[in-house]
Amino acid sequence: MRSIEEYQQLVLEELNTFQESMTGKLSLYDPVQYILELGGKRMRPVLTLMATDLFDGIVQDSVKSALGIEVFHNFTLLHDDIMDNAPLRRGKATVHEKWNVNAAILSGDVMFVQAFTLVTSCKTEYLRAVIDIFNVTAIEVCEGQQLDMDFETRDDVSIDEYLEMIRLKTSVLVGCSLELGAVLANASKEDSRNLYDFGMNLGMAFQIKDDLLDVYGDAALFGKQVGGDILANKKTYLLLKALEDSSEQQNKNLKVWLSNNDEESAALKVEKVTEIFNELNIKEKADKLMDDYYNKAIQSLEKINLDTLKKEYLQGFADSLMARTY
Amino acid sequence: MRSIEEYQQLVLEELNTFQESMTGKLSLYDPVQYILELGGKRMRPVLTLMATDLFDGIVQDSVKSALGIEVFHNFTLLHDDIMDNAPLRRGKATVHEKWNVNAAILSGDVMFVQAFTLVTSCKTEYLRAVIDIFNVTAIEVCEGQQLDMDFETRDDVSIDEYLEMIRLKTSVLVGCSLELGAVLANASKEDSRNLYDFGMNLGMAFQIKDDLLDVYGDAALFGKQVGGDILANKKTYLLLKALEDSSEQQNKNLKVWLSNNDEESAALKVEKVTEIFNELNIKEKADKLMDDYYNKAIQSLEKINLDTLKKEYLQGFADSLMARTY
Repeated sequence: MRSIEEYQQLVLEELNTFQESMTGKLSLYDPVQYILELGGKRMRPVLTLMATDLFDGIVQDSVKSALGIEVFHNFTLLHDDIMDNAPLRRGKATVHEKWNVNAAILSGDVMFVQAFTLVTSCKTEYLRAVIDIFNVTAIEVCEGQQLDMDFETRDDVSIDEYLEMIRLKTSVLVGCSLELGAVLANASKEDSRNLYDFGMNLGMAFQIKDDLLDVYGDAALFGKQVGGDILANKKTYLLLKALEDSSEQQNKNLKVWLSNNDEESAALKVEKVTEIFNELNIKEKADKLMDDYYNKAIQSLEKINLDTLKKEYLQGFADSLMARTY
Repeated sequence: MRSIEEYQQLVLEELNTFQESMTGKLSLYDPVQYILELGGKRMRPVLTLMATDLFDGIVQDSVKSALGIEVFHNFTLLHDDIMDNAPLRRGKATVHEKWNVNAAILSGDVMFVQAFTLVTSCKTEYLRAVIDIFNVTAIEVCEGQQLDMDFETRDDVSIDEYLEMIRLKTSVLVGCSLELGAVLANASKEDSRNLYDFGMNLGMAFQIKDDLLDVYGDAALFGKQVGGDILANKKTYLLLKALEDSSEQQNKNLKVWLSNNDEESAALKVEKVTEIFNELNIKEKADKLMDDYYNKAIQSLEKINLDTLKKEYLQGFADSLMARTY
């Protein structure tokens, strides 16, 4: 097995080649190059390469398909930013802000085809399995985005619905990234599927950690404003659980704060909502749910036919992702 | 060989199954069902089935992939309508008008995945060839749409640029539809490619015919307002050729009319621009270009290893498309 940095390096080299292939072409490709330059840890393609390596596949043969997952992910960010009317992504103007909505739609579309092209540029013998995983996942990601948009205007979102939304919108792609790598290493169907379940459950745990960090994270460490989700009235697990578990009075107080969007009371809103979360032990409940998903991930991992060292590598990776920093 | 109506019937049956598979699912699929219900001659999937039949393939085995081409085509219409800010499609509200822009973007995206899923639901042995044709074509269609949008705000579009735009935006998909059917019937690479060229050139001829019909068509027959392109200042072959061939005075007159968008002088604008077209023999020049593409299509057809009866069938089909009705 290689280090995470080595996988990242392989992804970045392929990304460079891909970026160069678009230089001097139609302006349609400018936003594609732009969003792919915004950076990120490239975790999804790293997972693909890691999975290929785990099953003794030829890592180099998986790099193009792995990059396809990254391009697909960035395509979803590009279109989601239009739908969310987001002005910034990683501190830079979003594509529809820098260009316009039409350019963002069309460049996203071409990026989607590029993603398919890259993902399917594997050996022909793996093509059917690769396409089947990828198509199902791509449909699920679209479904997740619809649920996420729907939830913004609904005030009766259940915790189960929320968990299904984050599963579709983010976790399935983590599973898909790993399964893709396994398939490209000719792993058995069962092992590939267990690796998918490992990734999917790890993705769920990670998303709940993300919800937790918003409220209980160290602002200095994460470079994010603490309480951003609270200020945006985002229906996270924390908020939904608090709404569910609250007494009549607490529920009333929560809803008063939710309806208060005055800028001058922002700090107080974060403080008061967090206070209610604390009264209801929401942090502990979210920690517990996160642990449940993490444990499910580890159970799936244990079922995979891999030697102990490799399983330890994967568990180490999972632990590093889940490290408590709040 | 079957009749066009029989191919259409096969496509419609598969479309029904596809529509039913979305019923009762997320609202994400409502716009997909809606746009697919707006109708049309389903000419692209018909071409796919026809091509499979020409090479003695199993037509039934091509129906899902053929429908994928139709779904892809409708996806492009859906997103193009947003970009063109079009209120109507086939006399009904466009998706972004009936729902909203976000729904139109996301339903388009999921439709794109559905198209890929359908197109790739062929036998595994054909998968590589099918994906390669489809991905290249899908990229080209996006590029064509970008050029089309760019041309709206440019006043220096050359005829070559225009022809390249319609090739990418519409003609390549006609070629792709036919080549797909040939590939699915295990036709040779050369035959498949010649059939693609036949379709692509026929698509070019058909698009120029479309430009001609706008000015010289029988309004009663085509259900379209004569001169719609002239009123929209659309940079068609006719207008670009007139701008190129006009004397200084004619060019000046043309440009005066182009800048006149008063509703009350609409009829006069159509009359006067048509007059200049007539002075410059634009109809004859467009007829000639259309014939050139038609002849190129027939030359490609002649190269294909098919018996005379089948070639006559294809030529008959081409002739029916190109029948002069102006």
